[in-house]
Amino acid sequence: MKALGTTFRGLGNLLEEIAVDPVILPTFNEVVAAANRLEGFAHKTPVLTSRTIDEEIGAQIFFKCENLQRTGSFKFRGAFNSLAKFDEQQRKAGVVAFSSGNHAQGIALAAALLKMPATIVMPNDAPAAKVAATKGYGATIIFYDRYTEDREAIGRALAAEHGMTLIPSYDHPDVLSGQGTAAKELLESTGPLDVLFVGLGGGGMLSGTTLSTRALAPECLIYGVEPEAGNDGQESFRKGEIVHIDTPDTIADGAQTQHLGHYTFPIILNGVNDIVTVSDQELIAAMKFFAERMKIMVEPTGCLGLAAVRKMKDQLQGKKVGIIITGGNVDIERYARFLTTE
Amino acid sequence: MKALGTTFRGLGNLLEEIAVDPVILPTFNEVVAAANRLEGFAHKTPVLTSRTIDEEIGAQIFFKCENLQRTGSFKFRGAFNSLAKFDEQQRKAGVVAFSSGNHAQGIALAAALLKMPATIVMPNDAPAAKVAATKGYGATIIFYDRYTEDREAIGRALAAEHGMTLIPSYDHPDVLSGQGTAAKELLESTGPLDVLFVGLGGGGMLSGTTLSTRALAPECLIYGVEPEAGNDGQESFRKGEIVHIDTPDTIADGAQTQHLGHYTFPIILNGVNDIVTVSDQELIAAMKFFAERMKIMVEPTGCLGLAAVRKMKDQLQGKKVGIIITGGNVDIERYARFLTTE
Repeated sequence: MKALGTTFRGLGNLLEEIAVDPVILPTFNEVVAAANRLEGFAHKTPVLTSRTIDEEIGAQIFFKCENLQRTGSFKFRGAFNSLAKFDEQQRKAGVVAFSSGNHAQGIALAAALLKMPATIVMPNDAPAAKVAATKGYGATIIFYDRYTEDREAIGRALAAEHGMTLIPSYDHPDVLSGQGTAAKELLESTGPLDVLFVGLGGGGMLSGTTLSTRALAPECLIYGVEPEAGNDGQESFRKGEIVHIDTPDTIADGAQTQHLGHYTFPIILNGVNDIVTVSDQELIAAMKFFAERMKIMVEPTGCLGLAAVRKMKDQLQGKKVGIIITGGNVDIERYARFLTTE
Repeated sequence: MKALGTTFRGLGNLLEEIAVDPVILPTFNEVVAAANRLEGFAHKTPVLTSRTIDEEIGAQIFFKCENLQRTGSFKFRGAFNSLAKFDEQQRKAGVVAFSSGNHAQGIALAAALLKMPATIVMPNDAPAAKVAATKGYGATIIFYDRYTEDREAIGRALAAEHGMTLIPSYDHPDVLSGQGTAAKELLESTGPLDVLFVGLGGGGMLSGTTLSTRALAPECLIYGVEPEAGNDGQESFRKGEIVHIDTPDTIADGAQTQHLGHYTFPIILNGVNDIVTVSDQELIAAMKFFAERMKIMVEPTGCLGLAAVRKMKDQLQGKKVGIIITGGNVDIERYARFLTTE
């Protein structure tokens, strides 16, 4: 770990149990350690290619398919890496997380594999399929009313009362180091890339990817991709400080975060080349391409990378381009509606 | 190649240009030669696993994902293998095939890669998406009226007039040897399996799989799987002779063949353990599982294997089971309808 300078001091701590001041940022060494912990537990997800998209773009495109990861998204990597580092006492008391989405499933399965209790705090209007999947992995679910209750307060209270360890969905060194193992696998399989596109919400995957890419392919350009409606990452990147926004209105539910994290932001600011945005309509077009031509189911947030590549086509001629498909968890009726949208 | 005895003499030849009497059956050597030809042209498709299905069945299941093959199905393997063996004159005159489905796309892409002309004879009511995909690979399409015209006669006439070589969709030694490379890859990746499930229409994939499996995992049980409505393969297998049926009414359009072939049937009869059937409803349930839990798009015919595994669960406890997912080409509106079927 290397200590960050004073730049990011005084930003305050979202999760006081975890973040310390000054923030100690993980390095690629922590990604390598995470990869060792994940060995035999996480899938080494396939890297797919498509002649059709290569011809459309005029580039050689490699898709790292984290939608085919266990639990249907990359979130399992960071969750498992975090829980695998728990000491005896932490394991006994278990983990608590608040999430209605992919982080919930990642934590639930990781806890099941490591034989520790998991408690997930979810809004009472969470999609039934996600609740069922999380329960299916054996987690205890605590519902809250997202209009009247504060999930962080609930999570913190549970942690304090029962000695549980709270693992946030992105702003944690072990979480982002775990996410970095996907780009590590991608680069080990493709060799150095010219450009790499990664969707971002809170920046867990993007910051982890940055650690791996700066170590394994230092010349590779890294672009973060956000939905137009939720471009807090882009604004933060350009201003050099974390910008907070209201929950954005976008179909990319995995990118409806309101701000980057104290661990993720400095890594992104130092290592990413730019953050670009795409529209919901561009996400749906990408989703249809994945279904029609590549036969894979990708959730709206997982479509950010391909949508950006199509938009930036002119800058990618003849390049070797990586795209991380972050996840595939979308309610089946909702997915059917997207596929039939004109 | 080994010559088959007289058992299958006198059955007549569906395609007189290709079949000879007595039929000379390919062996695993031809599969190995096909694998060498396909190297660098076909995808080595991923083998996926799912903890959820393993727990449901009580077995260890390995899915060979030919829906992620180029053109979206295994048919590319057999098509490419056949065309790669053409001599100079054959290449110049090109290939002709009749198919409205996966074979058409396989032939079209293989011909494009090998820089030879391809002519595909398709019914004039073929789905627009399939016509577009086939044209996209650069093939010439000739439409016929399937109620008044005979596609085989059209194909044969084209072959005779222009010196084109007709490649049938399953009943050809080079086609089935090419299809056998999928099971070869699967077994090389998983090691010996206890049981292997393969959908069948005309038996190209099933016979090729049998060649590979009998060579690489001699003890492995092989089950062919057909839609209930189109169980000509099961009847043929049990009677010991090729049974012809009317075009069956099933959503598994890749298995709407009316009979096995002179090359595929004897290999199946000698090497397969049984042929079982599943209902359309069971196919839809499997299709939903693939979408919801594995994030892959599978066409109805590609669901035959998993549907059979669920039905035969009691016989599979503790076993190491392979399933070949044969393809993923289903019209996107039709797919959306299947996903939302109760």
